Amino acid sequence: MRSEGILIVVSGFSGAGKGTLMKRLVEKYDNYALSISATTRVPRPGEENGREYFFLSREQFEKRIADHALIEYADYCGNYYGTPRDYVERELSLGHDVILEIEIQGALKIKEQYKDALLLFVTTPNAEELRRRLSGRGTETEEVIKKRLRRAAKEAEGIEKYDYIVINDDLETCVKELHGIISAARHAPGRNEEFIEKMRRDLEGE
Amino acid sequence: MRSEGILIVVSGFSGAGKGTLMKRLVEKYDNYALSISATTRVPRPGEENGREYFFLSREQFEKRIADHALIEYADYCGNYYGTPRDYVERELSLGHDVILEIEIQGALKIKEQYKDALLLFVTTPNAEELRRRLSGRGTETEEVIKKRLRRAAKEAEGIEKYDYIVINDDLETCVKELHGIISAARHAPGRNEEFIEKMRRDLEGE
Repeated sequence: MRSEGILIVVSGFSGAGKGTLMKRLVEKYDNYALSISATTRVPRPGEENGREYFFLSREQFEKRIADHALIEYADYCGNYYGTPRDYVERELSLGHDVILEIEIQGALKIKEQYKDALLLFVTTPNAEELRRRLSGRGTETEEVIKKRLRRAAKEAEGIEKYDYIVINDDLETCVKELHGIISAARHAPGRNEEFIEKMRRDLEGE
Repeated sequence: MRSEGILIVVSGFSGAGKGTLMKRLVEKYDNYALSISATTRVPRPGEENGREYFFLSREQFEKRIADHALIEYADYCGNYYGTPRDYVERELSLGHDVILEIEIQGALKIKEQYKDALLLFVTTPNAEELRRRLSGRGTETEEVIKKRLRRAAKEAEGIEKYDYIVINDDLETCVKELHGIISAARHAPGRNEEFIEKMRRDLEGE
């Protein structure tokens, strides 16, 4: 039914498991392409240019901003992060569904430019579970956990801007639900204009 | 995630196989309740009151109109057809997803009253297949088939008013798609207001 891919923006609380979900989704189904962000931050050990991120200098990044080569970008803790337009548009035109993992401001900027983008919000089943997962990492102080929970409370204000909300309780169930939601979106009339037009023409001709 | 059921309105071309689809959907999954229409037409041999239709006299039907006991109704070929409100609302409050099979005017009347209703349009893969299915019944004259195709052309004008369009090529595939679309709808923020509110309250408390 479709020709062009769907642009999927995934946001959610830090600790809700977005990264694992996206990885599993791409592994399990072959229609997805995971977008790679550009950043000016220094690569961490083990990170590879073009795999985790495209690592750019500030000058390179700012040239891309000026060239409108980024769909959205943000300055976070003194480093730029952004979504390269060329990769996204090429993959969409090939009929692949492109997934971006991004926070709410970026998500809304994307929706402005791609009105058919599907905005998904991932959450834990409840707040205690979020706290448990953030603590469970064992690497953070109580102060950092508190700060993340406050940030989550802030992020929760924007949930209604999303098209769908998905609860990540069991990973496999959640991956199936995400895939189901994206598959359903293919049936929107706006994504089937050619089919509808042809049907109309042919029915008039009958 | 949900408490109240989803109201599902199914329309589509005569010959697209709506009836068979609905029957199979209700057989295969246990969350659906099929709404039964009220009508003033005379029962056909084998039809039972409360199974195919609620058979009413014109007086009874008009009293129901006056009492706002019908969500929508239409006068078609001299007989009334309508959707009883009590059954639909009872089933929704029990958390069942209620399916109505209805044409576009009725579908839009329902959307006015139930803004969360899900409007689905069923079509054949193309116009030739629709003609084939209408002819295949073998019971209709060429004139009747032409008339139905013209009606289909008219119905096709309203497809964009529907939330989703489903192609009935293979029955089982189509039933799964319908179920997938309805399952995805449960993830809309508007259907999860309680969950979102609780999450917010609890995050603020953390």
